[in-house]
Amino acid sequence: MSIAAKPNAVVGQSGGPTAVINQSLVGVIEAVRRTGAIGKLLGARHGVRGIINQDFIDLDAVDKAMLDRVADTPAAALGSTRDKPDEQYCHKIVDVLARKDVRYFFYIGGNDSADTARIVNELANKAGYELHVFHIPKTIDNDLRVTDHCPGYGSAARFVASAFIGDDRDCAALPGIKINIIMGRHAGWLTAAAALGRQDDKDGPHLVYVPETPFSTKAFIEDVKRVYGKLGRCQIAVSEGIADAGQTPIIAVLARELGRDVERDSHGNIQLSGSGALGDFLADYLKAGLKGRYKSLRVRADTFGYLQRSFPGFASPVDQAEARACGAKAVEFALAGDADGSVAIRRLRGDKYRVDLVRAELKDVARVTKDMPRSYLNKAGNHVTKAFINYAMPLTGGLPVSGKLF
Amino acid sequence: MSIAAKPNAVVGQSGGPTAVINQSLVGVIEAVRRTGAIGKLLGARHGVRGIINQDFIDLDAVDKAMLDRVADTPAAALGSTRDKPDEQYCHKIVDVLARKDVRYFFYIGGNDSADTARIVNELANKAGYELHVFHIPKTIDNDLRVTDHCPGYGSAARFVASAFIGDDRDCAALPGIKINIIMGRHAGWLTAAAALGRQDDKDGPHLVYVPETPFSTKAFIEDVKRVYGKLGRCQIAVSEGIADAGQTPIIAVLARELGRDVERDSHGNIQLSGSGALGDFLADYLKAGLKGRYKSLRVRADTFGYLQRSFPGFASPVDQAEARACGAKAVEFALAGDADGSVAIRRLRGDKYRVDLVRAELKDVARVTKDMPRSYLNKAGNHVTKAFINYAMPLTGGLPVSGKLF
Repeated sequence: MSIAAKPNAVVGQSGGPTAVINQSLVGVIEAVRRTGAIGKLLGARHGVRGIINQDFIDLDAVDKAMLDRVADTPAAALGSTRDKPDEQYCHKIVDVLARKDVRYFFYIGGNDSADTARIVNELANKAGYELHVFHIPKTIDNDLRVTDHCPGYGSAARFVASAFIGDDRDCAALPGIKINIIMGRHAGWLTAAAALGRQDDKDGPHLVYVPETPFSTKAFIEDVKRVYGKLGRCQIAVSEGIADAGQTPIIAVLARELGRDVERDSHGNIQLSGSGALGDFLADYLKAGLKGRYKSLRVRADTFGYLQRSFPGFASPVDQAEARACGAKAVEFALAGDADGSVAIRRLRGDKYRVDLVRAELKDVARVTKDMPRSYLNKAGNHVTKAFINYAMPLTGGLPVSGKLF
Repeated sequence: MSIAAKPNAVVGQSGGPTAVINQSLVGVIEAVRRTGAIGKLLGARHGVRGIINQDFIDLDAVDKAMLDRVADTPAAALGSTRDKPDEQYCHKIVDVLARKDVRYFFYIGGNDSADTARIVNELANKAGYELHVFHIPKTIDNDLRVTDHCPGYGSAARFVASAFIGDDRDCAALPGIKINIIMGRHAGWLTAAAALGRQDDKDGPHLVYVPETPFSTKAFIEDVKRVYGKLGRCQIAVSEGIADAGQTPIIAVLARELGRDVERDSHGNIQLSGSGALGDFLADYLKAGLKGRYKSLRVRADTFGYLQRSFPGFASPVDQAEARACGAKAVEFALAGDADGSVAIRRLRGDKYRVDLVRAELKDVARVTKDMPRSYLNKAGNHVTKAFINYAMPLTGGLPVSGKLF
């Protein structure tokens, strides 16, 4: 087989950035170089959009030193996209791939990207075009099925847990009530990570609210009063996606109660990220609802925002290594002849944290997401359990430990 | 002189926490232990409030390993206070100090703390009570006079600059308009630090707005359109304290224009920190003001909040060392016989960054704060100059460098 006859490969990145999505990209690049079985490796700029626009970067030209720097850089170095291709869009993808003699397509992203990979693979099959399509998991939300956890989560969890450690010391130095809003529209994995740095019961967060548990504004005020009465302060972790028992987002509930407006995106969904509204509403609601000896307490809210997914120089080393390995493993599976799949992390039994990487079916990863199990949340629905701490702690690669004088 | 006859010392912390205020505390503790000339070293819990309440911690009992951990922990380990003592309050302070045979009082804080130190010293003088009062500078705002820069600023600058590096890569991956609100009610030092990580002119922040320059909402929209037209995205750093030419805070200007409410603190000041309101108002104002081909652009705002002053495990090593040294130097000055003063950092001439520590007069540090000089801000009032970068860069101890593929 002449060099020119070697099939080509395309890699793309999709969805919200993470601190390690470029580790997976570099994992793919390095593995492709190692195999020597692939002609050109093209990077699709801004995911599937780059494919249909034929907007590619020649990744073979990137030197090792730059690859190492890219791997350590947060956010998608190829550019990302929010496009969720339908069948017609996927037809165009297959057309371009065939025209470029691309036989390997690696797509790094969340459940939507897995679904795109699934559709592309099906269409190629139907057209009788041999294509190997691999999805490489990535999301700070940690809500993909099959895999034990998602590359990107460990670093985001490390950032959030660390932020709570420092903010808790801040709250202990200047006592009051502090609300921190964490990303997670549907699943509470990242919000739950706020609790990973607690050294004892006096440490914050003292309350943790996730979308999996219905949020009651009344119970919230009682929870805060109880904690404040005991500790003289209260640090609170809140998922942006908390909703009441009727599935109405709390941001909408509070907007109604407080008589405020909420921003909506072009799909009519309430805008949860990139706005401080939920935190501000919760703080205002709390100030209005705290009466008697709790009146006039100092209440503040921070919304951690995009820093959770993009802060540089603070990634979890465990997460970095796993994300890199997932990229390489996708290449390995594809070159070994597997037609399609998603790379999943499997946690091995034993006291020491160890994993291996396995192939999952695209249909088992696509579309539907994974909530936190009940066993990771306490009965009152306002904190996490030890089982969750045991699950998530190794993924952070370690957390800062506070020194205290009282 | 018998051991019992050795005079005692008190150390306290005041104002908003920083990532290195405990370095200064540990600097004081270590220096006191080295001298052997002081009886007991008492830590005042929650600053001056701890003195008048006689709420002290015995710092002699803290072991070396815990001291090292405390030094690396953000926020005030002794607890902080927002109390700004008047003369009567300071009288009580001197009374308690005299009753406890305290001859050395070290107060770590900003300009208000320097003023407290000044008043306490004057009252002790009047009463004929020999007291050595030293202020140790601390503020992420970097707005103290005399000193070249303030302990606490370098670490906050490192955090903010790094956050902008990652967020800029995020904004390049999913292009749009991104506003980030930075702490700084009166001075723009920390907001300006957002620009420290730029590798070239395409990197954000593309616009930097500080309180020192009057902010025009109209010019803001034109600035954003110009940048977006050129780069296809725009990342913006905004000080929480920006105000218009008539000194009206922009948050109040926009609240009026958008018909929204703003929170006020117990003193009637508009609440700038611990709320996402300014960012949300700016984003809404921009969305409404962007017309024609700029209509429907993706606009998001994050407010970095308390993370800027309390994030752990990411302090500037330069800042850490200087903060520790400032604590030790205060003890050295006091023990050498100086009655009072503030420790100031003096930058030495030469290509390499080097400093020494000198004594400043309390009255020259107290009350009045220091704005950014004109030479650190560009003429258009929407960015910083190279002179500022040269000034601030060494204080961060180095920043993450992004790898890019396009």
